[in-house]
This record gives sequence, C-alpha cells and structure tokens, in this order.
Amino acid sequence: MTSPRSYVIIGGVAGGMSAATRLRRLDESARITVVERGEHVSFANCGLPYHVGGVIDDRDALILQTPESLAARFALDVRVRTEALSVDRDARTVAVRDLRTGEETSLTYDALILSPGASPVRIPIPGVERGLVLRDLADMDAIIAAARDARRAVVAGGGFIGLELAENLVHAGLDVTVVEMLPQLMRPLDPEMAQLVTDHLRAHGVTVLLGAALRAITESGVELDNTAELGDGAEQLPADLVVLSVGVRPESTLAAEAGLDLDPRGYIVVDEHQRTSDARIYAVGDAVVKQRADGPASPVWLAGLANRHGRLAADAIAGRPHAAVPALGTAVIGLFGLTAATVGRTERELREEGCELRVIHTHPSDHAGYYPGASALALKLVVDARTDAILGAQAIGGGADKRIDIIATAMAGGIPARGLADLELAYAPQYASAKDPVNMLGYIDDNLLDGEDSVQWHELDARLAEGWRLVDVRTEQEHADGAIPGAELMPLDALREHAASLRDEHVIVHCKVGQRGHTAASLLRQYGVTVANLDGGYTTWRSGTASRSLAPQPA
Amino acid sequence: MTSPRSYVIIGGVAGGMSAATRLRRLDESARITVVERGEHVSFANCGLPYHVGGVIDDRDALILQTPESLAARFALDVRVRTEALSVDRDARTVAVRDLRTGEETSLTYDALILSPGASPVRIPIPGVERGLVLRDLADMDAIIAAARDARRAVVAGGGFIGLELAENLVHAGLDVTVVEMLPQLMRPLDPEMAQLVTDHLRAHGVTVLLGAALRAITESGVELDNTAELGDGAEQLPADLVVLSVGVRPESTLAAEAGLDLDPRGYIVVDEHQRTSDARIYAVGDAVVKQRADGPASPVWLAGLANRHGRLAADAIAGRPHAAVPALGTAVIGLFGLTAATVGRTERELREEGCELRVIHTHPSDHAGYYPGASALALKLVVDARTDAILGAQAIGGGADKRIDIIATAMAGGIPARGLADLELAYAPQYASAKDPVNMLGYIDDNLLDGEDSVQWHELDARLAEGWRLVDVRTEQEHADGAIPGAELMPLDALREHAASLRDEHVIVHCKVGQRGHTAASLLRQYGVTVANLDGGYTTWRSGTASRSLAPQPA
Repeated sequence: MTSPRSYVIIGGVAGGMSAATRLRRLDESARITVVERGEHVSFANCGLPYHVGGVIDDRDALILQTPESLAARFALDVRVRTEALSVDRDARTVAVRDLRTGEETSLTYDALILSPGASPVRIPIPGVERGLVLRDLADMDAIIAAARDARRAVVAGGGFIGLELAENLVHAGLDVTVVEMLPQLMRPLDPEMAQLVTDHLRAHGVTVLLGAALRAITESGVELDNTAELGDGAEQLPADLVVLSVGVRPESTLAAEAGLDLDPRGYIVVDEHQRTSDARIYAVGDAVVKQRADGPASPVWLAGLANRHGRLAADAIAGRPHAAVPALGTAVIGLFGLTAATVGRTERELREEGCELRVIHTHPSDHAGYYPGASALALKLVVDARTDAILGAQAIGGGADKRIDIIATAMAGGIPARGLADLELAYAPQYASAKDPVNMLGYIDDNLLDGEDSVQWHELDARLAEGWRLVDVRTEQEHADGAIPGAELMPLDALREHAASLRDEHVIVHCKVGQRGHTAASLLRQYGVTVANLDGGYTTWRSGTASRSLAPQPA
Repeated sequence: MTSPRSYVIIGGVAGGMSAATRLRRLDESARITVVERGEHVSFANCGLPYHVGGVIDDRDALILQTPESLAARFALDVRVRTEALSVDRDARTVAVRDLRTGEETSLTYDALILSPGASPVRIPIPGVERGLVLRDLADMDAIIAAARDARRAVVAGGGFIGLELAENLVHAGLDVTVVEMLPQLMRPLDPEMAQLVTDHLRAHGVTVLLGAALRAITESGVELDNTAELGDGAEQLPADLVVLSVGVRPESTLAAEAGLDLDPRGYIVVDEHQRTSDARIYAVGDAVVKQRADGPASPVWLAGLANRHGRLAADAIAGRPHAAVPALGTAVIGLFGLTAATVGRTERELREEGCELRVIHTHPSDHAGYYPGASALALKLVVDARTDAILGAQAIGGGADKRIDIIATAMAGGIPARGLADLELAYAPQYASAKDPVNMLGYIDDNLLDGEDSVQWHELDARLAEGWRLVDVRTEQEHADGAIPGAELMPLDALREHAASLRDEHVIVHCKVGQRGHTAASLLRQYGVTVANLDGGYTTWRSGTASRSLAPQPA
C-alpha cells in the first residue's frame, strides 16, 4: 500500500472548498488541508449584499459550513485565519502562518490547489481609506455598522456587486447614489440594454451618475470629476458612507512569487485541467484567467465556474481528468424586482473586434398576454453573420434568467441562431407563449437569413442621411404618444393603400417592437420597395438614444 | 407574370392561422382562404380553463384575432361557421358549406393546408350526452353556465386539460372530484413524480380517484367502476356537472375520405415538410402524427409544435423548405401554484421497450437556500445507459419550467447527460444555486458513469431480498420523523466509525435526497464495502411507494 497523499488547498470558499470535498470523496486516505486567511470558509459570498438590506435576515444563514462541520463530514483539516506565505516548488511545501498566534509551519503537498480569489481594488485617490469594500463577512459587518447611522451613501462602481449593494442600501433606508466612470452601468450589457437597468434604478430612487469619477473621499462625502449631470460646480456629493466596488484584482502574489505563469493582468494561467505551469499546482476561481468561447481568454468572476473548476481540479489530481469547457460568462442580477441576465459577448466588444454581426432585439411579454401578470421582457441576440453561431445574448425583465439559461445551453450545444425557432419549450399561458421569446429570436434570424434587411438603432441616423425614408407603421395613437423625429405615419392595417406610392423608394419601417415592422417590410418588398425594418422598433431606439446622451456610439 | 396562386387552409386556430399569415408575408398576391367550422379563429385555446375559474377575467381577451382584423392586416378571406365537406384532389377543389345559410361553394387551391385539430372523445357509456367537454369558447361558455348553479363537479380524466379544469372549478367555488382510469394522473410523468401532483391537488381540496372508470352519467351524478378508494358499495358520486376530458380523437375524416395516408390511430401522416401523401396537401397540428426524438412517431397535442409546423408548411409551399425537427413533447402545467413540466420520454415507457437506462432523481431548492422564498424542486432525468444521451426529464416544483426548458435545449443540442454539469447557467441567489439543479443532474450522472451504483425506489425491495443491508445516513431526528422499514441508522458524520464493521458487506445507503448518500457511498466504497446509493433518497422512495398503492410497479 502506498502512503497517503497530501493535498493542500489555499482558499476555503467556492472553488477551493469544492475541490477539497471532491478530493475527499475520491480519496478517503489522503491528508487534505485547507488554508483560509479569513475568519470563515464556505460562506455565501453572493448573499452578502442581501444581509446589508435585511433581505436575508439571519447572518448565520450565510455561513454554510464551519471547520468543525467539514472535519466531521469530510475529515478535512481546515485552518482559518491562516495565511499562505510562500511555496517551495522543489520541496513541495507551503509555508503558512497562523494569524492569531503568529506561528509559522510548513505543509507538504503532493498536489497544491490555489483558490485565492480576487480582492476589491482600492483606487489611488485621496481619502480612499475612508471607503468600504465588500468581500467577506467582516466587510459586510462594517458596511452594516456604517449604514446604521448614515443617511446618504455613495456606491462607486455600477457592476454587479455595486448595484446589489445600492439596492440593499436603499432597503436599509439610505439615499443612494451610484457613481460609474463609464457612460453606462453593467459593462456585460450593451448600452441600450443597460439603459433599462439605469431607468429602473432611478425609478426606485437611486441616483445614477454615469461618466463620473471619484476624485477624493472626504470626511463629508466624495468629490467627483466629470459630473455633467450634477450641474455647474456641483462636484461635491455629501455622503456618510462610501462603498468602493470598482473592480477586483487577482490575489496572485503567492503564485507570482512561486514563479507560476500569470497573464499580463496578473491572473494565473491554467490549462483545461486547471493545472498551472507547475504540474503539481492547480488553480481555480477568481484569480484564474479563463478560456472563453468566441473570444480571448479573460477573467470571469463567477461562482458557478469556480465550483465547477474546483471539482475538475480534484478529478485531475485523482487521475480522472475531464477537460473544462470554454466559459460563456452567464450571469444574472436582480434589482428592485427587475431581472437582467447575460451570456457570451456584447455587440460593442464584437464590433470593436471587427466581427460581422446580425443583431436582434425583441420585446415580447414573458408569458401569454391574455393571462394576468405578464411582464415585459427585452431580449437581444448577437449572431455571427457568416456562420449563424450565437455569440451572445442579453435579457432584461420577466423571465430573463430562464431565457438566458436556454440560450446559454443552446450555445453550449452548438445550436445556431436559426435553430432557436425549433426549440421545443414548455408552454402554458402562465409560463410562456406558444412561440416563446427565444423561439421568436430564431424566427427573426430566419427572416434575416432569408434576406430581410434590418437596421440597428445606432445605424438609423446614417441611413436617414443617405436619403432613406422612415415610416412608422404603428397606430395614430402610438405615434402621437411618442415618435422618432422625421417618421411618416402609415399604420400597418392601411399600408397596402400606400404601397404603390412607395415603389422604388428606400424605406425604413418601424413599429413598437419590430413585429409589425416585419409584416410591413414583407408587404412593401413585394410592391418593389427597397425596405429595411428598424430592429427592436421604437422601444429599442428609445432606450438606445437615451443611453447615447453620455455613451459613445457603437462603431 | 403568373396568375395569383390560391391557398386554402382548413382550420383557423394555431397551426392553420400561423400558416395563413406566414403565407401572406411570403406571397402578397396570393388568394388565401381560411375555412373554420367554429365561431372563432385564433382564440386562446390554452386559456379556456382559466376563464372558467375567473383567473382570466375578460372573455374577450381570449379572442386574439377576428376575421376583420385578419382581413385588414393580412388580406385573408376568413370564413367562420363554414365546414369543409370534401376534397377533390384531381380537380384541386374543396367543397365547403356555410353553416348559417347552408350555401355550398367550391374553393380551388394550388396548395391546401389541413389544420382540423382533434376533438374530445366521448366514451360509450350511458348518459354520456350529459357530460360537457372543453374545446372551444362555446364549450367553455357551457361549462361556466353549468358551474353557476352547481355545487359538485366530476372531471373525468387526469391529463393536462382535465386538471386545469379541476383547479379552475375549485376557483369557481365547486367541490371537485377527478376520476382517472389509470393508476396515476398525468401519463407524461412517471408515477413517483405524478404522485407529487396528486398530493398537491388533494392538499388543495380536490378529490382524486385513481384507477376508477366512469360507468355512466346519471341525472344525479356518475356511477363508477373500480372505486376501491371510495369504500364498499360507494359507486355513486353525486355531481351537478360532469366534464369529460379523457382524450382526443383526430378530426381526420375529411383527410381519410380524400384518401390521404393516416396512421393506425387515424392521425394524418406527413413528411418533414408537413406534406401529406398528396404533394399539394399539407397538414399541421393536433390531427397529425409527429416524428419523435428517441421513440416511435406519435401524436403530440402541443400549441408550440402546431405554430411551428404551420410556418414550416407555408415555407415549403412558398418554395423555401426547412425540415421540421423530431418532437420532444415539452410540456408544462400549473396547478394551485405548483409547476409540473416534462420533456421527452418516461422511464416507464422506455423500460417497457427494454431500454437500458440510468435514472436520476434529485430534490434541490429552486434557488440558494439562504435566500428567502426557496421552494422545493423534484427533478428526474432519464438517460440512455449505453450512450449517455438524455431521453427525458421531469420536474415538479419551483422553477420546473426553467429546468425543463434547459434540458429540452440540451437534448436539441445533443448534449449528453454528463454535459449538464458543464452548462453555465445564470446564478444569483434569488434565481438559482451556484450549482444549478440541472448541473447537479450532470454531476450525479458523472458519478454513475464513474461506477457508482444507484438503486431506484422500485428496485429497493428486490435488492433487500437479495440480502443487501439498508443504511440510513441521515440524522437521528430525520430518521425518527420517518424511515424506510428495515433501515439501520448510521448518520453520515459518524459513518467513519462504522465503516470498518461494514467491510465486505453489501450495503444500500440512503439519505433524504441522495446527496449525503453519495458522500456516504464514496466513503464506504474505499473501506471495501460493496455499496449502492438509493437514488433520490427517502424523498423519492416515499412518493414512489405512495404511488404504488394503486400503480403497477415499473418492470
């Protein structure tokens, strides 16, 4: 019998703990040691913002496992408040220090798994030490304590964690301002989609300042640059609480000092079995750069991938390797009841890379309109124009998480955009429509493949400048309620009367969301009109142009 | 220029109307006539039960289009209350009769689309004429009128429409009994899954009689055969309202008389372009037999397929054929807030066909347990043991529709069961778990592929008879709250103490849902125990054995 093997895992949350418990199930005899710098392992980091707002009432609910429970069930040696100091790759040892006693010891390993995570960035501005961040339970406790006596909060950073915190600080009774340096919130969304999130936050009382940068944190609040929206001279924003949520940096110092390969941004490079440049050292989670589907490798800070890769690292160590699949970056956020979800890559990124795209927006109800409670869903699909491959999707509104999960699965299965029309999705009127919103994307793609010309909201001005006419095929009432400047009204149900008069013209038709526009375009084409349909209709155009007040226009 | 083409569509709901409007978009010059025997076209047939219960308040909301609106927008000649009498295939004419005037005319076609649907079966029992059925708005009105003065209702048939009606008759204030001839409700579910629906209906006051057949409908109610559950002699069930929802029959008489190919059950046979045995006649919808993925062709009465096939028929007629993909039969029902969804084939059917299967049950929360509002989800996966192909899935509870849609998409994309572990699904604690329930299915399949032995609830007795020991690894409290007869308690966190004593034994471990059982099995195997895990744990075993009180045991 061989002597028991020794495994050391650095970082006891998400990927690290998935690896540790999986290793135990595969190898009952191994010595498995988990080293965690913080107070807790296996805590619910994705739940932290919700305890700030009282949505999750019980703090203990966030602590999923303890060193004791993990020892009992999985015979793990879990050492919290213990920091890994250095790795000796030749000796295969890790030097660690107990942060409570200062005692240093050395752990031998047959395989080492790094799951150090990423830490919130502290930007180099005066007073930055006054800002709070949110990574662990101690951070959360500090925010809750600060919020208790606070009236006004500034959250710097309009990404996932920043916005979840903004909502929860509102729930905690504070006036909240989100300050985002970019001209939009939520970079994984394109601007016309992000605009819906901005509108929703503002409707729930959050002040959103886009294109605004923190210059300093003072005793009384923050000082800002580029605050056009605040009006003349208003560069001071009073705040009793400032949270910095402006990005993360990988905790890869240990890996760097051990001489492991890092990417230019400092993320640990691994192969498809999570192996670093040292065959006995694996790495998982937020400190690792991921292979991406349809794009260059990049960090993806998602719990699902961390867990998955933790298991795969354990499998590889135990001699049953399965390769990781490239990451899609599927993500979702809920904000004041609005769901925003995304998968894959954005139109903005892909156009910057010069990709030839088909882009589809649709605005269906999340379920049959005749059944009570239907809510609006904005759905966007980004397609490779040459191959019909789905490159990305974004959804905002009712059932957005479901639709993005379906599309993520279609992408994983290599289903082309047109194939979305053939998906058989569960239908009853309270759940979907007989043609599900995802099916509709496939139908629209099919129309485009069939030669229908569509125009994106950000392409409209250029077409009009070329002399195309713009025809609104909605009803008189809809037109009166709000119209695109220059649009001529020709309601769809009377369009046949106008068709002959448009022969040989170049016409862009639009309706509210694109569906009547498609019917109008099909009709006019057969009367000899050169016709294009405004993708997503008035609805997409309106949010797109609203986003443009600050956003640079996509190329 | 060629003369305009003539298209006739028989049946103006779902598939028929999808075909008609699609044909118009493809061919502005064609003469398109839609013949509908009933009063309405394009009504929301899936919504009818919900108006009975007042969930959908406005009857007009169920009428999605009118002949007038379809004439205005699509220049369709829609003739309601008009019956197709016969087809002359040589002359390419359809004889039709206006049911209001009795006038008969003949319509010429270049292509004919049959979308006649299927009608509720009236079983040959005395008094059957007293029973109501639900197919169209007139039927719905009759049920509502009858319910107004009724106190007690019997719904014969425990399929989708019968159960939706049962719920809505409860909402309308009636005492409702569902009488189902089979030993379970909802044949697209396996018995242990259907049991959860039965339990839920009973908890909401519906009386459910399984394995009971209607013998007669009398003035005062119904007479039943095989009513073991009612007790001695209680073969009479008083009722003021009896609804028959015991299946449908295809409306294929016209097709048969025209000499088109039908299958043995009378459903119209079509190719992948919806073409019948006459190249100028197409058929779509509930009267058509569908090619099935992973099984013999069969009828599938689903609105999504009807709409999809309507469009494909129009595409083929217009010279741009796309082949239909084989049907999965994805479906969902909501009953008193419980969601039950299914895709593909059942364990029962496949075992009857002799397939070698891997079957997986899991009982996760629909979202992270630490976030409020998590509800239970029962999830089942049926896998081809030789190829790892997913053959079917069933889900009951929170988020069931989403999980079945994901699995249906995975099936369409050819993703094997193990690949479910790699799906990147959108996670935030209010929407899912970092390992989504669908991922868990993939993880469990991976364990089984890796050699873990699992036992189904209906296989347990046979294993115990072979001398296997049964070990409950739950806590003392859980064991005390309900246990499988003969199970020995050895809580997981103390299992290492017992492991040596079990060496060389044959042991089935079980926990509540299967997850701790997996950890226990992994542990014991390494101590030299021959071990199997009870799939789905105590939870699946309990609903399975409850379903067995009437159900024959799966082979």
